[in-house]
Amino acid sequence: MATKGEMTKQKIIDDATRVFQRKGFGASSISDLLDATGVTKGNLYFHFPGKEAVGIAVLQQEAERFMRFLDEALVGETPAACLDNFFTMALCKHQKSGFVGGCLFGNTALEASDTFPVYAQIVSDVFDQWIDKLQGKVSDAQSLGLIRGDLPATTLAQMIVATIEGGIMQSRLQKSADPMSRCLDTLRTVLGLQLPTSH
Amino acid sequence: MATKGEMTKQKIIDDATRVFQRKGFGASSISDLLDATGVTKGNLYFHFPGKEAVGIAVLQQEAERFMRFLDEALVGETPAACLDNFFTMALCKHQKSGFVGGCLFGNTALEASDTFPVYAQIVSDVFDQWIDKLQGKVSDAQSLGLIRGDLPATTLAQMIVATIEGGIMQSRLQKSADPMSRCLDTLRTVLGLQLPTSH
Repeated sequence: MATKGEMTKQKIIDDATRVFQRKGFGASSISDLLDATGVTKGNLYFHFPGKEAVGIAVLQQEAERFMRFLDEALVGETPAACLDNFFTMALCKHQKSGFVGGCLFGNTALEASDTFPVYAQIVSDVFDQWIDKLQGKVSDAQSLGLIRGDLPATTLAQMIVATIEGGIMQSRLQKSADPMSRCLDTLRTVLGLQLPTSH
Repeated sequence: MATKGEMTKQKIIDDATRVFQRKGFGASSISDLLDATGVTKGNLYFHFPGKEAVGIAVLQQEAERFMRFLDEALVGETPAACLDNFFTMALCKHQKSGFVGGCLFGNTALEASDTFPVYAQIVSDVFDQWIDKLQGKVSDAQSLGLIRGDLPATTLAQMIVATIEGGIMQSRLQKSADPMSRCLDTLRTVLGLQLPTSH
């Protein structure tokens, strides 16, 4: 069972995630974190040396969750069906949040690249692992002729990630699922995904 | 000829652009702007009521510049060649900056969507106009059979913008042109761009 201290630390990480996701790391102050978590300043500093450490804990927790999400979403009868299901699940995930917050890794990539090298490294690793997992499915689908085979699997995987991040960006601006949804449908077509006919 | 006041105002906008591009709007303080521009606080407040007004001026100036860039980049012998040239010019533009700063509109889209509605509106208009200009070329290229015709021009244009923004994101993280460059090459292939053979 988690101790009271562990529960407080976890609550800080969870509440801080929402603050950082909406406002960004740079614009979030320690007092924003105190307001969101309801803990005292002394309590926050007992668990974390400062804002950057909270940010690292948030990114690490989100990275672990995202890798689990990928493994759960990349499932299906065929490698092409796995990719198709991942597209659907990714859209659902963001629809549920009403396109508030968006992708913490995308946000951090744009915010932290030039100013927070520690954050940038964590996010860069997330993107590498994400591309790697997709590449495995693309490559398997290519061997079975279920996706276009004229481009390397890694290139297609990288383009999928880029298109999804750009689609989330447009959906967040419009607070509508349409741009992301159209991007995913377009991806299905341009990748030439061959899906099992539904039973 | 610009007056001294107009020149100061312009200098504030130009220097603030760099600050906002690297740090984001939320994390940039008035004192960051004073440091970057070298003007006094009184002088800055003489020209702008506050940080948000500087941000609006920066976004408006960048929006005008970007629209000029699009018109200059979307040129070529055929509509497909126009798109190809735009891809090349977009890559060059970001390579020149060493992928520091990235795309101010993409950054602002992710940062401002949930917190600065005025900025979000300006950026949303920029994306709409960008997609619109690309759509014109895609549509013309489709009539000539120089690009795939199985998807609506607007859908392809929107996907091009998403993929470019996502490619810039990955290139900024890695401080390398490779991800963006590969995204653009992949776009050329999946769009089925038919280019004039070089002479």
